[in-house]
Order: sequence, then structure tokens, then C-alpha cells
Amino acid sequence: MKVSVLSALRTVTLQDRPMPEPGPGQVRVKVAAVGVCGSDVHYYVDGKIGSAVVQYPTVLGHEPAGIIDAVGEGVNTLAVGTRVAVEPASPCMHCEHCLAGRHNICPSVEFLGTPPFDGIFMEYRCMPAHCCIPLPEGMSLIEGALLEPMGVGLHAVTLAKIGFGETVAIFGAGPIGLSTMMAARLAGAKEIYMTDLIPERVAYAKDLGATDAVNAAETDVTDWIAQKTGGRGVDVTFEAAGQQQTVTQTCETVRIGGRAFIIGIPTVDEFTIPMHVCRRKELLLQQVRRANGEVFRCMEYVAQGRIPLKKLATHTFSLDQVPQAMELVHAHQDGVIRAMVLPHGDLD
Amino acid sequence: MKVSVLSALRTVTLQDRPMPEPGPGQVRVKVAAVGVCGSDVHYYVDGKIGSAVVQYPTVLGHEPAGIIDAVGEGVNTLAVGTRVAVEPASPCMHCEHCLAGRHNICPSVEFLGTPPFDGIFMEYRCMPAHCCIPLPEGMSLIEGALLEPMGVGLHAVTLAKIGFGETVAIFGAGPIGLSTMMAARLAGAKEIYMTDLIPERVAYAKDLGATDAVNAAETDVTDWIAQKTGGRGVDVTFEAAGQQQTVTQTCETVRIGGRAFIIGIPTVDEFTIPMHVCRRKELLLQQVRRANGEVFRCMEYVAQGRIPLKKLATHTFSLDQVPQAMELVHAHQDGVIRAMVLPHGDLD
Amino acid sequence: MKVSVLSALRTVTLQDRPMPEPGPGQVRVKVAAVGVCGSDVHYYVDGKIGSAVVQYPTVLGHEPAGIIDAVGEGVNTLAVGTRVAVEPASPCMHCEHCLAGRHNICPSVEFLGTPPFDGIFMEYRCMPAHCCIPLPEGMSLIEGALLEPMGVGLHAVTLAKIGFGETVAIFGAGPIGLSTMMAARLAGAKEIYMTDLIPERVAYAKDLGATDAVNAAETDVTDWIAQKTGGRGVDVTFEAAGQQQTVTQTCETVRIGGRAFIIGIPTVDEFTIPMHVCRRKELLLQQVRRANGEVFRCMEYVAQGRIPLKKLATHTFSLDQVPQAMELVHAHQDGVIRAMVLPHGDLD
Amino acid sequence: MKVSVLSALRTVTLQDRPMPEPGPGQVRVKVAAVGVCGSDVHYYVDGKIGSAVVQYPTVLGHEPAGIIDAVGEGVNTLAVGTRVAVEPASPCMHCEHCLAGRHNICPSVEFLGTPPFDGIFMEYRCMPAHCCIPLPEGMSLIEGALLEPMGVGLHAVTLAKIGFGETVAIFGAGPIGLSTMMAARLAGAKEIYMTDLIPERVAYAKDLGATDAVNAAETDVTDWIAQKTGGRGVDVTFEAAGQQQTVTQTCETVRIGGRAFIIGIPTVDEFTIPMHVCRRKELLLQQVRRANGEVFRCMEYVAQGRIPLKKLATHTFSLDQVPQAMELVHAHQDGVIRAMVLPHGDLD
Repeated sequence: MKVSVLSALRTVTLQDRPMPEPGPGQVRVKVAAVGVCGSDVHYYVDGKIGSAVVQYPTVLGHEPAGIIDAVGEGVNTLAVGTRVAVEPASPCMHCEHCLAGRHNICPSVEFLGTPPFDGIFMEYRCMPAHCCIPLPEGMSLIEGALLEPMGVGLHAVTLAKIGFGETVAIFGAGPIGLSTMMAARLAGAKEIYMTDLIPERVAYAKDLGATDAVNAAETDVTDWIAQKTGGRGVDVTFEAAGQQQTVTQTCETVRIGGRAFIIGIPTVDEFTIPMHVCRRKELLLQQVRRANGEVFRCMEYVAQGRIPLKKLATHTFSLDQVPQAMELVHAHQDGVIRAMVLPHGDLD
Repeated sequence: MKVSVLSALRTVTLQDRPMPEPGPGQVRVKVAAVGVCGSDVHYYVDGKIGSAVVQYPTVLGHEPAGIIDAVGEGVNTLAVGTRVAVEPASPCMHCEHCLAGRHNICPSVEFLGTPPFDGIFMEYRCMPAHCCIPLPEGMSLIEGALLEPMGVGLHAVTLAKIGFGETVAIFGAGPIGLSTMMAARLAGAKEIYMTDLIPERVAYAKDLGATDAVNAAETDVTDWIAQKTGGRGVDVTFEAAGQQQTVTQTCETVRIGGRAFIIGIPTVDEFTIPMHVCRRKELLLQQVRRANGEVFRCMEYVAQGRIPLKKLATHTFSLDQVPQAMELVHAHQDGVIRAMVLPHGDLD
Repeated sequence: MKVSVLSALRTVTLQDRPMPEPGPGQVRVKVAAVGVCGSDVHYYVDGKIGSAVVQYPTVLGHEPAGIIDAVGEGVNTLAVGTRVAVEPASPCMHCEHCLAGRHNICPSVEFLGTPPFDGIFMEYRCMPAHCCIPLPEGMSLIEGALLEPMGVGLHAVTLAKIGFGETVAIFGAGPIGLSTMMAARLAGAKEIYMTDLIPERVAYAKDLGATDAVNAAETDVTDWIAQKTGGRGVDVTFEAAGQQQTVTQTCETVRIGGRAFIIGIPTVDEFTIPMHVCRRKELLLQQVRRANGEVFRCMEYVAQGRIPLKKLATHTFSLDQVPQAMELVHAHQDGVIRAMVLPHGDLD
Repeated sequence: MKVSVLSALRTVTLQDRPMPEPGPGQVRVKVAAVGVCGSDVHYYVDGKIGSAVVQYPTVLGHEPAGIIDAVGEGVNTLAVGTRVAVEPASPCMHCEHCLAGRHNICPSVEFLGTPPFDGIFMEYRCMPAHCCIPLPEGMSLIEGALLEPMGVGLHAVTLAKIGFGETVAIFGAGPIGLSTMMAARLAGAKEIYMTDLIPERVAYAKDLGATDAVNAAETDVTDWIAQKTGGRGVDVTFEAAGQQQTVTQTCETVRIGGRAFIIGIPTVDEFTIPMHVCRRKELLLQQVRRANGEVFRCMEYVAQGRIPLKKLATHTFSLDQVPQAMELVHAHQDGVIRAMVLPHGDLD
């Protein structure tokens, strides 16, 4: 079977590997769709995210859906042919964080496509059976693969505990920012304002449900939010771009007593925070780390039509086109939101 | 009556002003004791804190206790002779934050000794009656004046929601750091580690109840906390020094999934935050802003002997010695924790 | 002007009273629409709710909207002609509960139509200006009057802190149960099950957005919920009927670790609780008391079309028909959900 | 080895069983001390608690400490000779409640001495290694056995989220009520009031740290709390007796907006709740179910001397005296708080 292998910075080749056989408690997944995440691109272009450094050769990709192709010993909950979303995280289940129900911060988690674990840009992969969640009727495999980024948005909004009548600003309208917007809307946010530097993304934000959106290259964001809120600021801000400027905006545009959340993966090791601004607001500033199974608890929302998830998938690529997909996402070209790699073509 | 007036940077003179008469709903307080806070020193030395800029002439001082000296029309809850602590904050009671019970972030608060409001380094001052809280039996006036900084510690620990078995680190062992430590201990923290750069403060920390304390000039703080906690870090960190180094330590020494609180007033406008470190921990980082009446709801703790508050007062000064008190606190000399100004000498 | 006066059990007459003049800080409201609440009917039929006993003569009615007709001294935020919803509660703003932001449990609240305060089944009434909230553009006066019961539902769901993917059951599909359902849906509940004894209400529940609804006279409710949830029970239950049977159902149908909320005004002083059932679930059971301004913070939802509020108003009456309205609601006749009294006819 | 077997209501005999051998992941514990819990007495006297019905023969006892006597395959964290407290609960770790960190409500938990699982009134018992927690230096085996009831108090106070300045009432001063009191005090409660019907327990309550305590047989409890709190009621109430009267008191003596917790195991299936009283207070009423590992996270408090745990153990019995211990506890005779069974005599 074919595997897309990263052997150096921006160097990907398609290689043959033997078809894997599922061990006890495992299943083999025929990989149908894998989203190209910003973190994949970080590893592809920079070879690292913070202290997590790629060990070559490796395989990227961690937003998959597929079809059960074979089942290992002791697996009786999944049958061959079942269409599943694949949870990329296998937390240890024994550390204090897992015991407290915060599996997303387990320091011993095995996460697809994160050093030193191989990802899933490949035709077949064996996975623990408990990581494979059957898709509800009517959900496509591409939607199934989009559940993972959607989960990040749901997790961010869960942390933010958005209440009735609250107003929200989201800085960055890529897949994570848009997922966060859809989650905030689902949670009852009254108004949601978004920004991005790419015109297509600004348009997407409005189309998918933001109250309003502007291009931050053309509009002073702090002024705009002040104007939209009568000078008060919004109740909750989400940073979904990983930039100093947007981090500063999350602090500046949130109201006194508000909550700010940083989701974006930063491009540098340190950002500055405007301390007096934050202090006068008694600001709560929280980092957001991946997701904690939220989406698998509520994937029915997509089937119910309450989250227009499919619209996030703007481009599809075959497995040998992983480099092209990476470069496209890196360059933010052609209005890309989420690029999907389909190792077996369209299985939906 | 005498008033200690600040007319320029580090320029204080004692002036005569007419004895004030209490208006309706007001009382006149014979000022017995006023603590010298770090924020007083900021205004004295720098003329500003962030965007709050002194308008000369002004009067500093906002941690008072005294004796009711006269009562205005309509005041029937306080009698002449009653010993009271004075709440320095008069929130508006009508903004959304006051309505939500977060009076400490009221943007329209009138706060003693904060531009543009005069403080209380003076012999007599009229105050709204509702700001004057009778002291429990057995509490001294100096203890009454120390309730205000103690309230900041109680507020910080309230925000931190410290639970059973939790471990704490506090960076900075001045009056606020020590108050926070005593509050954390009262809330049931299992272990509390403290640091400071001044040997007397390190000794004070241990004496007042910290599990252990070190001099950060001599010990690598991050290593020390790692060693004390078996590499895990503490559950909650409090920054009580206003320095870049200690802000970094609050992020580095807190455990994965932990909570960090910044209480110290920063000396500069911006601090840097180690983003990847914080992101991997899904860190919650919250600023702490003054106090929200906590101490007046539980001043009996001091009378019960559960908070050794009096030990914070290390030095006393007369009203004409305000400059000496300011300079002493600014220089952190002579092992000073809290210097108290006693406008009428010792009334206890 | 005309006033609908209750002078004994089930005895209402239309009387003339002088046109009231607004005092300082007050406005005079031309009353456009007043909903007939179940608590009005309790006072009308029983003369009391628990220890709150009617003192005759009195005026009922506390769910009003109207038009500003005159303004008193010092009122500069409202102009004659402004269409407003009227908040029926005037909390004291000084007790510990008001200070903590829980105005709905203020023991000194003055609440329209609750002993000993007159309500608003009348043509004109003077109100504190701060109780009158201008309606957003496009909202009808009848919708404005429906904001008050809607607020109860929003408050109940606020207390319940409904999260993503949660399932809900609501026992009772009258105006409060339906408001709670619409609020739970707005907050992102995944599935909402409802019951009632009246066929029209069951149909209404489905029509307004419940996932499913049954007639509790024909279906075993506990079995039904068990079947719908695969034996697990729902995450959150709301009791909105005030009956022993529905209280028992809130305990029996909620999942282990779930939360149950009692909104309905009970018909008797005591209900029994199945203790072992509740203990094994570590059940959280909370009473819900009126509302805490939620609806006035988010009345725009109605204007945005996210709450189909208007459908709750099924019947209209003139001011002289208050007795007929009361009897209709008491008898649950003719498919009534909310009956509206329009003292001046249709002003929309 | 000897085992204390319950073969019918109030029928206990000492029997010989073969010495058990630890399987993989297990250890054999030489049982040093086992507390006699009220739930043991329920099973002994009534044969059931709610729907949990004893299947004879069985063994009771679930509050143990002991010494590691042998280790099974794969156990490398515990050595022979280690003194340990034994966690009586083995939750499934896979259900939604375990995944959410609420192991105490796991419906598949295996709990010592609860149908259908044998308890630990025996000389030796094999246990999963992860249930055995080494005692801190200086803690006696009897204290180790008392950690389990102490954990219930810590769990109750954890659920109650007691904050600074809060006042507490506890109805029932047996081991659980006293543990709750010590936990509430550790958490910073300002005042704690207790009641019981047994004079020795009232005295114990005062001795161990309650602010005040009265005999409910002689004092009107509701009046007493009203008087102690100026008519306001306390912030938090705990029921620790399992009686209708004390359940009613938790509702009546708690302040408006307060929180009430039911810990006691009820003697009947249903209790009545005063609905109008609770509704006007918007009362939060929560059941408390066992403990969630709190005590093992903070057993050092006992070693630090912050919880006077040892005083709870008032009587000791040998293994053949289990019936006498049960009857003593059932009759509340001789001032018993916690009776301890020591299968091997005093090993401390």
C-alpha cells in the first residue's frame, strides 16, 4: 500500500509499505479522507512546533475518516464496512489529567502525525478500535474527516462557557476560526464578529453565519469592534491565527471582565501581552489545546443540519499530491479553507 | 487639619486644610492607620500606573482604618466612636459589572488615592457611611488597615478556586504575596512555596505559614519547584512582584492544566508569555484586580486568630513622615513588609 | 382609566381610577399587552401561593409591554412614544443577593401582581424608568409581553449550564415549558423531549422545536425516556407543571450524575423525592425562581428570528374579559398556551 | 485464615477460608484495621439499602488499612511490608462518568462489602495494586482506615465549593458529619454549627472544631440556626443522619440562594421536601455519593496535623467481635463514633 512519507523539510515522497494487519483490539481502516491541518504545514515547513521536533522519516495527517477494512482479535463493536471517523488522540487514561476527564492535555498521549508518531496520509492504517466512531446515517466521509477540526472549535467554546446574549469576536477565519464560529453560534452567542487577511475567508465567515466580518488588512480591528459594541468590547474573544497582532487584539477588544482564548499555534516562541490593559479588565486568558472528544459526543449536530460542516472542504487531492496540498495551504492560495487528501479517490 | 500632599514626583508636603464636614450619608473618619501600598509608591516615583496618570496636587493612601468622628444626615448605622475599616472603593452599583457582582472591575469606581481621587494620608476624611465597616471586637486599628491588602489575597484565592490537596507557588513575598499565602492556607492548600529576592521576606514567608521559601537571587526557581513537586509543577501559581521574570515563572512552574494568576502591578506596559509552554498546558492565566469585598465579608477570621495579619505591619510613621515611608518601601529597606502611617499616633 | 380589580376569589370587576402621574424617575406606560400567567391564576383561584397571600382588593398581571405615555422628572433615557417591555421585578439592589448579581432571589423585591403589590391589568401604570426596556425594531408589543415568561426559560437553562451534546427532558408544555425548550435549543441541546397531558400542547411542543413529545396520559414517561436514550436517561430534566408526578419524573428520567430543575409552582406544600434513586445518581436538584434579567439581555434573539416567541400567544382578551381569560387558562381549554390581555385593543 | 461471614440478618460467624493468592496486578493485604460504617449496619440489620439487596453469605467491611503481605505478577510499585490505606472502590474506568472524572458514580463500580462483592472483615484479602495507597510517614494504620469516611466529608465539601466567609450547618455528628465538619473547616468555613441527638456526639462536635453544637432533642434546630445567623440562615447545609427531620432542616435553615447537601443514607425510600420554602430560596439540593478519591489526594493533611482524624476511632474490636461492633454502632451506645475491627490486634 502507498504511504506519503516526509523525509526532510518540504520533502514528501510516495512509498510502498506492507499492508498492516490489525493486532488485538485494533481495526484496519481504509483511509477515505484526511484534512490538511495548519499543524501539518508547520511540521512540513518548519520541522517543528515549539519543542516538538520531527524525526525523519515520518508521516503526517491526523484528521481522518475511513471504512473498517479488517478487525483484530477481540473487536466486536465494529464490523467490516462500517464508515467511521477516527479520533487521532490516544490518551494514556491513567494520568491525573485523564482521570480528571481532561484527556486533551494528557502528556503521554499518542497523537497521529505528531512526533514521534506516524500520521495517516496513507492508504490503510491500523488503529485501536475505540478510536473509530461510526458515522451517523447521512454523514459523508469528508464530513467525518472534518469532525476533528470542528472538535477544536467545540472544545474552545466549551472552555469559554458562552452564555445567553454573549457577543464574540474571532480573529482568523481559517478552518479553526470558522469551526469556532459555528460552535459559538450553536451555543447561542448573540453576535459573532470575525476578521481575516484573506478576502475569501472574510466572505466565508459571513456565509457560514458570522454576524459580520472584515478584512483586517483594510480595517482597524480594535476600532471596528469598539464601534460594533458601542465601545464596550465583546464578552469573549478567540485567537485563531497564531499571530502577535491577533493575540493583542484578543486582549484589546474583549470587554472588562471578559474571557480571551488562544487557539492558534504561534509562529514564534513568545508573544507580548499588554499587561495594564489586561489587569484593568481582570482578564481571563486561556490557551486551548486540541479537543476533548466533544465532537464525537455531538456529531449528530452535523447530521441534524445544525452545523454546515461540509462547506469547510474546499479542495481535494490524491495521495501523491500531498506536497501540492501542503504548499497550497501554506500559501493560503485559491481561497483554500480545508484541503482534503483522498487516498482512494471519492468514496462517498 | 493636616494633609500629606503630593505635588510632583517624590515631592510631598504637609499642608493645612479646613476640617471637612460630612454631607448626607457620609461620616467623618478620624484616620488612625493607613498602609503604604506598592501602588502608592508607583504613583509617588513614576507619577502613573499604565494609563492612570497623577494630576497634581493629589493625596495618596488607600488602606485605612479609623474612628467615626462625626456623622452626616441620614446616617443611623454608625455612631461616633465606632472603630472602622474603610473600604477604599466606591463602585457605581449600576454598570453591568456591578450588577453581576463584580464590583472590583467597575470602570466608574471611585478609589481612594487613584487619579483623579484624593487618598487618605490626612488626619480626617469624609467617607460614604457604607464604606465604613465596624471592626470586630479585639481587632486593632492597624489590623483594620491591613484588611485592604489582605482582601487582595483573599480575592486572588477566590478567583483561583483552590481545592483540597492543591499545591501553590507564590512569586513575591511582599504584603500581597504574603496575604495571598495566608488566604491560600486558609482555603486548604496542601503546600505553598514562595520566593523573593529579599532575605527578610523569605524568612517572613516561612514564619507566616509557607511550606517552604527560597531566595530567587540564589536559587533557580523553576528547578526548585520542579524538585519540590517531583517534576509535576504546582496546581496554582500567583505572581505578586510585577516583574517579567516572575510572570515567566508562573507559566513555567505551574502543572499541565494548571491556573496562573497575575496580581503584581507591572513595571512596564508589556510582558512576554512563553506561548508553546502555555499552549501545551492549556494554561488558564488570569489577571487579578484589587478585591471584591472579600475581606469585609470575613474579617472575623482575623479575630478568630486564623490569619496572623498583624505581623505584616513592620514599621510605623507619623503623617509628616510619608516621604520617608515611601522611600523606605520603594527601596525595600530594613526588612519592611507593610509600613503604616499613623496620622494621630498610636490609637490602639 | 380602567383597572381590573380582584376583590375576592374568582371575583374581578372593572373599576375607574384616576390617571396616575409619573413621579421623579418614573414613566407612565400605556399598557398594550399583558400575559395571563399561571401564577396569576393561582392567586385568582386559590388566593395564595405558599405563604404569599392576596390582600384584597388587588390587581394581578405582571407580563406587560406598552408604550411610554409620559415621563417624570429626571427621566432622559425614554421618550414618549417608545415601545417597551416592562420588567415586573424591582429588586432592592442592596441586599447580599443583589450585590452578588442574583436579583431574582432578592427577598425585598417589589414584583408586579404579587402580594402586596398591584399588578398591571389596567390601562396605564407608572413604573420606574429603569424597568422599561425599549423593544428592538421589528418586535411586536405582544412579543414584548411574552419576554417575561421567555425569561424564565432562559433563566432555567442558564442555571442548568447546558453543554454541547446534552439531552433534555421537559415535563409540562405550557408557556414556561415551551420557553424552556426554546431556550435549551438556543443553548445547543442535542435532543429535547417533552410531555404534557393536553394534546394541543404536545403538538405545540413538536411544532416549536422539541425533538419529540408525547401525551403523558397515554404513555409511560419513564419508559419513553429510557427508550429514547437507550436506558441512560437525559442529562438535564426540567419540571414545568408543578405536580408530584412530574417532580418524580425529573428524578427518575435523568441520567446518573445529571441535573434536575423544578420550575413549576407546586399545587401543594410538599412533594416527595425518591431518595435512593437520587442518591445513587448523586443528583443535583435545583429550584428555579423567576428570572434574572436574562431576556432583557438577549431580546434581540427574538428579532433575529432565533426564538419563535409569538407562537406562544394563542388568545387575546380585552380588559373587561380578564375573568374569562383567567377561567380559560385555569381550565386549560381551547388549546390555550398564553392568553394575552390587550387593555387598548391591538396596538401592534 | 479467618473471615467474618454474614449469613442472614444479624447473623455473623467466623469461618476459615484458604489463604488467597494474589493474581497478576494484585497484592495480598494483611488487614490491620477496618471501620464499621453505618452502611455496614444497614446491611447487617435490614439486609439492603434501597435496591441493593444482600446475597448471603457475604462479608461486610469497606474502610480498611493494612500491610502488603504478598505481591502478584507485574506489581512493582508496592513492596511487602508497606503500610497502605485501601480504596474500597474499583470503578470501571470506561463509562462516561469515569471518563468525565466522576468515578464515584460509576454504575459498574466494584465496591467492597456492597452486593454482590465481598467486603474485608477478614484477616487477608487480595486487592488490585492500584487500590493500595502507601501511608505517609507518621500515619497510623487506624488513621489509614479512617481515611475512607474522611473522604466522604472531603467529597461533600468539594461538591459544596465552600468559599471564604461562608457559614455551615451539619445535621448529624456521627463519623460522616464530623468528617464533613473537619473538611469544611479545612476549606475555610467561617462558622460551623452541628446538631445530634446523642450527647457524646454533641460534645465531640465542639471538641473537634465546630463553632457550636446542640442536642436536637432539646433545642429547636431551626430557631437555633436562625438565632445564630441573625435570621439569615447559613450558606451551606449538610444532612448526615438520613432522617426526614434533618432533611427538612437542611432546607429550612439554609439561606436564600444557599446550597444543601444530603449525605446520610435514608432509612426509607422517600422523603418530603418543603417545595415553597425551597422555591423561594432557589435552593440547590444535591445528593452526595461516597467519595471520588479526594482523601487519597490529600492524606498528607492528616500527617500535617490539620485534620484530627484519629479522634474518630472510639472503640476497637477483634475479628470475632464483629457482631458486637455492629450492635454497638446500631444502638449508638457508649458514645461510639467509629468502631474499628482489628483482625490481627494492634499492629500500630
